Amino acid sequence: MALIVQKYGGTSVGSVDKMKAVAKRVIECSQEGNQLVVILSAMAGQTDRLIQLAGEITDHPDPRELDVLLSTGEQVSIALFAMIIKSMGYDVRSLLGFQVAVLTDRLYGKARIRKVETARLKRELKRNRIVAVAGFQGLDSHSDITTLGRGGSDTTAVAIAAVLNAEVCEIYTDVNGVYTTDPHICPKARKLDAISYDEMLEMASLGARVMEIRSVEFAKKYNVSIHVRSSFSKERGTMVVAETMDMEKVLVSGVAYNKDEARITVKKVPDNPGIASQIFKPIGEAGVVVDMIVQNTSEDGLTDVTFTVSKSDFYNTMKVVRDVALEIGAEKVLGDEDISKVSIIGVGMRSHAGVAQTMFETLFRENINILMISTSEIKISCVIEEKYTELAVRSLHKVFGLHNEKLQER
Amino acid sequence: MALIVQKYGGTSVGSVDKMKAVAKRVIECSQEGNQLVVILSAMAGQTDRLIQLAGEITDHPDPRELDVLLSTGEQVSIALFAMIIKSMGYDVRSLLGFQVAVLTDRLYGKARIRKVETARLKRELKRNRIVAVAGFQGLDSHSDITTLGRGGSDTTAVAIAAVLNAEVCEIYTDVNGVYTTDPHICPKARKLDAISYDEMLEMASLGARVMEIRSVEFAKKYNVSIHVRSSFSKERGTMVVAETMDMEKVLVSGVAYNKDEARITVKKVPDNPGIASQIFKPIGEAGVVVDMIVQNTSEDGLTDVTFTVSKSDFYNTMKVVRDVALEIGAEKVLGDEDISKVSIIGVGMRSHAGVAQTMFETLFRENINILMISTSEIKISCVIEEKYTELAVRSLHKVFGLHNEKLQER
Repeated sequence: MALIVQKYGGTSVGSVDKMKAVAKRVIECSQEGNQLVVILSAMAGQTDRLIQLAGEITDHPDPRELDVLLSTGEQVSIALFAMIIKSMGYDVRSLLGFQVAVLTDRLYGKARIRKVETARLKRELKRNRIVAVAGFQGLDSHSDITTLGRGGSDTTAVAIAAVLNAEVCEIYTDVNGVYTTDPHICPKARKLDAISYDEMLEMASLGARVMEIRSVEFAKKYNVSIHVRSSFSKERGTMVVAETMDMEKVLVSGVAYNKDEARITVKKVPDNPGIASQIFKPIGEAGVVVDMIVQNTSEDGLTDVTFTVSKSDFYNTMKVVRDVALEIGAEKVLGDEDISKVSIIGVGMRSHAGVAQTMFETLFRENINILMISTSEIKISCVIEEKYTELAVRSLHKVFGLHNEKLQER
Repeated sequence: MALIVQKYGGTSVGSVDKMKAVAKRVIECSQEGNQLVVILSAMAGQTDRLIQLAGEITDHPDPRELDVLLSTGEQVSIALFAMIIKSMGYDVRSLLGFQVAVLTDRLYGKARIRKVETARLKRELKRNRIVAVAGFQGLDSHSDITTLGRGGSDTTAVAIAAVLNAEVCEIYTDVNGVYTTDPHICPKARKLDAISYDEMLEMASLGARVMEIRSVEFAKKYNVSIHVRSSFSKERGTMVVAETMDMEKVLVSGVAYNKDEARITVKKVPDNPGIASQIFKPIGEAGVVVDMIVQNTSEDGLTDVTFTVSKSDFYNTMKVVRDVALEIGAEKVLGDEDISKVSIIGVGMRSHAGVAQTMFETLFRENINILMISTSEIKISCVIEEKYTELAVRSLHKVFGLHNEKLQER
């Protein structure tokens, strides 16, 4: 008998009929002799409906009250789901964040889990009940409701799998698993059988939106085996696990891209010590997260500083940076929204030279100009003109041997 | 500085705009130097929408899970309401049943309040915050969510007013107060300035649906002053209070009616001891609540037993009673759905003779046949043919001096 944690996202529980399909799947798994804790998101569309209601009041709803509002979405899901399981003749209990209890800090809207109690969960499991838990929500030290931010239900699932020492945490979604790249761009993308936590983290943060990055960090920290798979098929998906020797044999596991960034360059900055801090302090204070930063070699005591931010922060950041540029005596500030970031990811590149060179050559062969480069131990990212994104992804996918050769080239 | 508890029903908070009007009213009252605890119902239509979702699953949803589902309605209300207050620049906290905490028994769907904690409420009030509390919901001894049944928000409000020793519990509704009778039937109905708990209980149970009967019982038990008034005007409404000497001067305070009953007669029952129990035991076991019961004087060892049930229980009860009639050797069972019950209510009738006589004479003068009579200390009810309901109400209203003579007779 294994203890399995399953998480179903908003599209998987988007209607009563879809919930019934999920319930059948859960019951089957239970009949195979497993103990089940099922984490549910809000029904697709619910959260948007609630946000719209809040939007009728103000553009900046009180964060505490917004969490009270939004957490009703998951509450509706688990109540309906438990009714379905019950009406099918199986014993079940729904549990809210405060009932579990999922204890968090007080950062409304993006709270972090501090502790998950196990007493109530274990009591219900011991009584052979299926347990349906509301994802995304927790309770702070003042007994106030918090929410964990976008993708928070993934984090709830992984955290519960961790504290219950579950055999596996299954993340059900509308894709079959994690692919070597976006199949919409590259039809020859392959589903990966397994991927390491670190690779998954890079994939997640680089725009392959299968799992929320924080939940992967959590899984890595507590060594929770994750199985990303489809709610609509029985096919095996992708295991997200600790790194194995096997994984290192593969140079590159995947190609990711992100069209949601914009580039800002501060031209001819006097290259004094502390100049970087002078530029980036006010940006940070404006609540903007900077992704890549590149500073060129100094020439005549002047240097160029280039960095990327998300497109939604672009105008705000340009304003801040123009003020700073005046202060520090830079020549000018350039902005460019028509860029994208293409990355190759793989734990194998740690032990193999020449991976970066292959990437650069491939882009060069396609006449794609590289605007910025950034590297980490297991990934290389290049900023390019946005219009070349698809071409770059396909070329890199092919050159690193990721193509599914069983498929005909389209 | 007074502590005031206010309760707003579903129509008063039926949209964001209506909530804004309520918020303004609450803030004004707060600016007058009062501490405020505001109890809200679910937005009109919300609860029905949720029940419909559950109905897509089964006709008999699991009661525990139904409460988890339904309690989201009030949660949405208090969150939006608190956002509004906050956006208007005032400090506020929303509190759910479990946060207050409103502790109940485990009777899902119709839980009874056992205790209301005051620590959290007092802490928020001490910080000069307006407190918005979700009505209708509580927490049982297992930390599971319960709901208090129809009109439960009234009970929440009265219970909180009781434990906080509030100066008054204001029940805001879509009428101006409690009337001497239904103004739709009798345009000369007068708004009452004050009514005793006992009279209000009779009014509520007899079909004048202004407040839920359980909340009035609660108010009586803990001597909570209630002010029933309109959300849409500043006019003084009706105070529901402990009986005063003044009240006894009035013979009759109001005329109520109920068209929702049906009459069943068991003819020629052998008049043995225990016969009533033989008839009413199976009815009770079928979950049917019997209202009036009349047993005629025995003649030749045979008697007639007549009683009323709500129309929705009529067919079910007829079936049960026909079986019983066979068993006990009664002649036959008669049923009549075309009846109504008209009642006069007033604490004054305790000390005045002749009130019943006046009622019977009035009905007789209008040629209305009385089918059944039932009396208590402060009310007299007559069952009549349904078609005479309006005529009976108007005649009794006039004869007992309840007409508002400032109005022209229509």
